[in-house]
Amino acid sequence: MNQDEIYMKRAIELAKKAKGKTCPNPLVGAVIVKNGKIIGEGYHKKAGLPHAEVEAINSVKDKNLLKGSTIYVNLEPCNHYGRTPPCSIAIIKSGIKRVVIGMRDINKKARGGVERMKSAGIDVKVGVLEDEARKLNEVFIENMVNKKPFFIMKAAMFLNGCISVKGGVSKWITSEKSRRLVHKLRGLNSAVLVGINTVLMDDPLLTCRVKGYRQPKRVVLDKNLRIPLTANIFSKYPENIYIVTSKQSDDAKKRVLEAMDVNIIECNLNGDEFDPDDLSKKLLDNEICSCLVEGGSRTHGYFLKRKLYNKAYLFYAPKITGSYGAFNVAGFEAVSTPDEAIRLNNVKCKSIDGDMLIEGYFDVHRHN
Amino acid sequence: MNQDEIYMKRAIELAKKAKGKTCPNPLVGAVIVKNGKIIGEGYHKKAGLPHAEVEAINSVKDKNLLKGSTIYVNLEPCNHYGRTPPCSIAIIKSGIKRVVIGMRDINKKARGGVERMKSAGIDVKVGVLEDEARKLNEVFIENMVNKKPFFIMKAAMFLNGCISVKGGVSKWITSEKSRRLVHKLRGLNSAVLVGINTVLMDDPLLTCRVKGYRQPKRVVLDKNLRIPLTANIFSKYPENIYIVTSKQSDDAKKRVLEAMDVNIIECNLNGDEFDPDDLSKKLLDNEICSCLVEGGSRTHGYFLKRKLYNKAYLFYAPKITGSYGAFNVAGFEAVSTPDEAIRLNNVKCKSIDGDMLIEGYFDVHRHN
Repeated sequence: MNQDEIYMKRAIELAKKAKGKTCPNPLVGAVIVKNGKIIGEGYHKKAGLPHAEVEAINSVKDKNLLKGSTIYVNLEPCNHYGRTPPCSIAIIKSGIKRVVIGMRDINKKARGGVERMKSAGIDVKVGVLEDEARKLNEVFIENMVNKKPFFIMKAAMFLNGCISVKGGVSKWITSEKSRRLVHKLRGLNSAVLVGINTVLMDDPLLTCRVKGYRQPKRVVLDKNLRIPLTANIFSKYPENIYIVTSKQSDDAKKRVLEAMDVNIIECNLNGDEFDPDDLSKKLLDNEICSCLVEGGSRTHGYFLKRKLYNKAYLFYAPKITGSYGAFNVAGFEAVSTPDEAIRLNNVKCKSIDGDMLIEGYFDVHRHN
Repeated sequence: MNQDEIYMKRAIELAKKAKGKTCPNPLVGAVIVKNGKIIGEGYHKKAGLPHAEVEAINSVKDKNLLKGSTIYVNLEPCNHYGRTPPCSIAIIKSGIKRVVIGMRDINKKARGGVERMKSAGIDVKVGVLEDEARKLNEVFIENMVNKKPFFIMKAAMFLNGCISVKGGVSKWITSEKSRRLVHKLRGLNSAVLVGINTVLMDDPLLTCRVKGYRQPKRVVLDKNLRIPLTANIFSKYPENIYIVTSKQSDDAKKRVLEAMDVNIIECNLNGDEFDPDDLSKKLLDNEICSCLVEGGSRTHGYFLKRKLYNKAYLFYAPKITGSYGAFNVAGFEAVSTPDEAIRLNNVKCKSIDGDMLIEGYFDVHRHN
């Protein structure tokens, strides 16, 4: 690693501190260096709060030190007036002479910082640790490029792909340690999503039960609004619950749920199922940037066949059960040739207390 | 590792050279050491050929050297007249003064070498690298203790446990490298076994197509003798084919198959299915010590629910297909609670050219 990469790595580390908290904004960290010494650091903590560059500049008490310094930032400094003024201007004003950037901004509205800073005579370098910078902001990139949440498939299953035993019982297939990791994943994403059948069968809370993590929004896909008002999920944080239903479902029940502080999202249907574009748009509109989809069978089937998934966390208990009468993780029509199957890339396998966790990325075929 | 362990490790390495070739005999290697130097080595190459101890003794040209030497052997030297005379006597006659043994013999008929050698004044030590010695002869131990072949589950599937796409097509789900490894596994086991539906759907050859490996016996479970005389499997080595069928199936067809050199095994039924004890006995009688079961769905289901499996090699392609209309690897009735599911132990996961291979051992509940 050269000097630029070392400081960029530090900027990325800083950015990660706010993982899951900046939605709809990207994760950004910034490091200011002068004469081979870090003189300032900062990261973006939450939408509405200052950007990383401004945090880093503010962290330098003696503003004279900034003259002739270099700032490292994983994402191009913004050039627009959003909730805060443009960072490009703050950098120009500060006296910083060199700007090293991980990746250019994807957001067309915010872009242009590079050009503005260059014309102010600043030396700008783009593309240092670009792959890491892109990975760091995979959620933000997906939101911007494909106008949809970053959808993550999470499933706990037997080695033969079943997520339940006979009749749908699924508690508990995997180990306590695997389940704890799932709770952390909940806390690191904007939302958790399940289908109505999972609510009816498992009656889950869907909260994050690990200290120090945020509570995710909780989304239920419930076309016909079959959710019982007595469901466990309503026992905590109803204002965090989003029931996605159709325009045709029971209006009176919608009003009752809204009176309970529950959010109702009306989503267009496409045939018998939710329209994937409208679903994506409405979840994004509700600041659901990343969404951990926890099943069940038909819900995973819907996201898989619509090619909505970006990533998968597949937990396998070291056990096999019969498939007759059990639910498979992929509840949709099989394809006709193995080549048509949905591929996972960059697959990694690790062991968690006897379970296997397979992680990977899906090809998303919706990029513009 | 101490000196005894170092030489025992070498004996085990020698024994492994005959992997898959000694059935129904165990794998045995022997090393003779004098004054800290290896003066002789040998291993059992094939049933009917000399035992490892005799091979090692014969490898020492100057027989005077044997006086006062130590022999290392992973399995207790035999004490019975089988196809060859007792090794215990050969050792006593040779002048060897110390015998170091990995594990005692499981075979009651062959046992007693330790006692005979001790009463002849030889210093005998038992249990050096015993775990490794037991693992080396897991097949032999299973044959002796549970009177059944060592059954190995092999499956190539999608991440959701399906072994086919719509309508049963299963060629090819996994990578070429995974399939090559399967061919090696075929060559290292006495037999490959499939159910009749796999023959009818995939029409496989089931041979080992890697140079330097043996051709396995090929077994088809075919209760009603539905196999077509034109099946691919008959195009090579018919004398290596064993059709397991019931007494009730078509006698004339049995005679035709026998005339083609194919072996017919009549197995008792237990209800609608083969009696697992009779099946095990008849396969063992045909010197099928280890048997790689390659499916399909119902065949794996039969071996799983009857708890016949000892080991599994589960190959997962990094792909998911819908489960509707596809065959699951475990074609049998689901259990009612996750605790009743069939457990794999000592699970290991490795990556093979993008595929995942999960290996593990089943609890076999049939030990005496």
